[in-house]
Order: sequence, then C-alpha cells, then structure tokens
Amino acid sequence: EIVAAITSRLSQGPLVGKRVLVTSGPTHEPIDPVRYIANRSSGAQGTAVARALRALGAEVVFITGPAAVRPPEGVEVVPVETAQEMEAAVLAALPVDAAVFAAAVADWRVISPTDQKLKKSKGGVPDLKFAENPDILKRISNLEAGRPSLVVGFAAETNDVLENATAKRVRKGCDWILANDVSPATGIMGGDENAISLIRDVGAETWPRMKKDDVAARLAQKIAQALTDLDRSD
Amino acid sequence: EIVAAITSRLSQGPLVGKRVLVTSGPTHEPIDPVRYIANRSSGAQGTAVARALRALGAEVVFITGPAAVRPPEGVEVVPVETAQEMEAAVLAALPVDAAVFAAAVADWRVISPTDQKLKKSKGGVPDLKFAENPDILKRISNLEAGRPSLVVGFAAETNDVLENATAKRVRKGCDWILANDVSPATGIMGGDENAISLIRDVGAETWPRMKKDDVAARLAQKIAQALTDLDRSD
Repeated sequence: EIVAAITSRLSQGPLVGKRVLVTSGPTHEPIDPVRYIANRSSGAQGTAVARALRALGAEVVFITGPAAVRPPEGVEVVPVETAQEMEAAVLAALPVDAAVFAAAVADWRVISPTDQKLKKSKGGVPDLKFAENPDILKRISNLEAGRPSLVVGFAAETNDVLENATAKRVRKGCDWILANDVSPATGIMGGDENAISLIRDVGAETWPRMKKDDVAARLAQKIAQALTDLDRSD
Repeated sequence: EIVAAITSRLSQGPLVGKRVLVTSGPTHEPIDPVRYIANRSSGAQGTAVARALRALGAEVVFITGPAAVRPPEGVEVVPVETAQEMEAAVLAALPVDAAVFAAAVADWRVISPTDQKLKKSKGGVPDLKFAENPDILKRISNLEAGRPSLVVGFAAETNDVLENATAKRVRKGCDWILANDVSPATGIMGGDENAISLIRDVGAETWPRMKKDDVAARLAQKIAQALTDLDRSD
C-alpha cells in the first residue's frame, strides 16, 4: 500500500517526464597515492535536493564526489572523485531539463600527482604546482547546443554573500544561484541546516534558516514551477 | 555475566597497570575555512591496536584525527584535527609506558591558512607555502626525560618497504617500526587487511597478510611481552 502510494506519487508529480541532474559532495584532488586536497562539504544539501526532485517525479542523475552521507534511493548514482571526473560525468548525463550544481568542486588540482608517496626530506617541503580545474557550472551554462532549460548553481561564501553570489550568477551565465554563508561560525558546512538566498535575474530573495531537507523541498517546488512555466511558453 | 567476564579479563591482563598511548587516523591541515589537505588513512589499524591493548588490560589514551571508523570502547579518546594539535595531545598524555604512533600525520601544513575562502581569480591558482609539521615520533623517541619505555612507529611505504622502514627506525630513534605497503594496488589503505613487517634492532620479521584486528592482537601481545621483560630487567 505504501509502495503503491509512492509509485502513484512518482507517476503523478509535477516533474514526471523531466530528467534532472544533481551534483553533490566534495571532490578530492590527489597529491600523491595517499594525500589529497579535500573540502568540508558533506554532500547533505545536494543529496536532499536529489531526493526532493525525485519525490516530485523527476528522473534524477546524481553525480557525487566522496560524500559523508548516503545517496538517496531511486536515483541513478554516478560516483566520482575529482573535478575532471565530475565534468566528464556531467557531460555524459546530458541532455537534461534542469541541472543543479550543488557539489563543492575543487577550483584547482595538483599538476602531475606523483605515483609514489612524496618522501619527507631534510627540511624539505613540497613545491606543489596547481592548475585550474574545469568550471563545470560555467561550461554547462554556456553550452550552445543542449543547454539545460534551467541551470542552478550554489555559491558557498564566507563574506559579502549576496554581492559575491550576484556577481557569480552573471559571471557563470547560470539562471539561479543559491547562496549560503559557510563561515565556520554558522555551522552550515557539515551541519543539517542552511541559510539560503535565491538569486535570479529578478533579484535576490532570502529564505529563513531551515533544515537542508526543507531548502531542498522549496527548491524542487520552484524548479517544477519554472519548468512548467517554460513548457507553457514554448 | 559477560560484563563480569570482561571486567575480570581487564583486571587480569598482562598490561594491567600499564598506561599506553595510541595515535590514529589522518590529520587534516587547513588551507582556508573550507579546504584542507587530507590522506587516505581510515584509522582502522590504530583503532584496532587501541582495542587490542585495552583487551590486555592497559589504560589507553587514544589520540585520533578525523577517522572514518569509530573509536574503541573503554579508552580515553582525545580528538584532534591537525598535526600540531596531535603533538600537543601526545605531550599532554605523558608519562606512558608505551606509545604506538599509528596515525598518518601530515608531514607538512600550509603556512598561514586564510580566514576567508580563497576566491577563484581569472586564471589564478594559489601559491601555497608549506611548513614542516612537528615530527611527533622523533620527538617522543628522543625525549631525555619521560621517554616511554617502548616507542612504536608505523611506516606507510609505496616502494622499497623494508629498506625505507629500516632507515626510518634509525632516523627516528624509535624502538620498533611496523612497516606496510600502501600502494593503491594492495588495497590496504582503507581496507581491512594489512601486510606488516616488524622492524626491531634485531632485524625485520615479515608477518603474513592478515586482518587489521589480527595485526593489532599480535602487536599488543608483543608489547605486553616487551614491557614484562623490561620490568624483569629493572
């Protein structure tokens, strides 16, 4: 009966027939076989978004770095480790109707990670050279063919949140940005709450601090509404 | 009845009355508020060693970085994040009869991690400067006053395992080194098995590949024997 209810809901939701991709979690960028650069993203917000989109009937491709939380049920899970692997997985998942980039992708990687563990030498410290990682959000936002109808990015900021995130939306060419303040004092990175500002072409709206699940549900509703509006305007 | 049996064993083991410290897990070295350098240590081997020492009756201080596995029951857990924090916790735990350094401590840290998240600039990649971290194993091995009777290190190698580990024992001044091959192909880092060579002043003995719990039990027995021998020679 419960299964029937769920199946019924999934075949009835406003996102039935829509294919959506969600990226989530951190990426890990190797330095050598044992060391890597990581970030404090738990994957909790991206996982909640994928679950909420699925609950509205969407077919969800969930591309996730090494996250601390389990992926949701009922989605196609594509595990990756590095930013370059994530980009390849995103391109392979197209076409989609909407794409939500919730992963905390490393901006740069170490050039030529070594095959052998770096040895500690007398007083020696490594001279790591970095290269910029692919900018997945910008690339997908600017696709000439096959751009998703709705591209949503996240901006994790520690200062001047609205200003930085508004500039990011324009710079990347995405439709919406969900901005949040990840200063350590907020407890958001790794916690179960989030304080979001949604930035669109019409401006910014700030949501009250709420559970990441509630952020996800609100975002999924807005995505469903936006895709419905786009269908009507076709 | 079971509790009584355990209590009885703990008050009877060969390490009753002995205080032992065990370090475990990776350390995380911050780059900025969201990024850090990590390593693939799960903390599984150190946790197993602490549990095995406890099972032989020792009072165990368990100093652990951010590990993937839970700390054992019945030990004093001291959670740390960076190598510098780990060193301070080790010094604070002295005096101990034996010390087992199973943590995968980062050899270096980023000088002056920033308070604000590093921004991605046009084509810009960071120019991170590194400093050597404290060498906890070497420092404790060379204490003039309060050196533990037995100091045991680990050597995670990806090549020339016995040669590198034998040199490491001399260079650090510790009594024993447990050397293992952490090449990705072995599956040891993050896995539940280990292939150990125990290196002492009398030479190296190579153990068959076995569960990390069995490595821990064998090591704990050898530590108990060594401390008993030392007591007799007093």
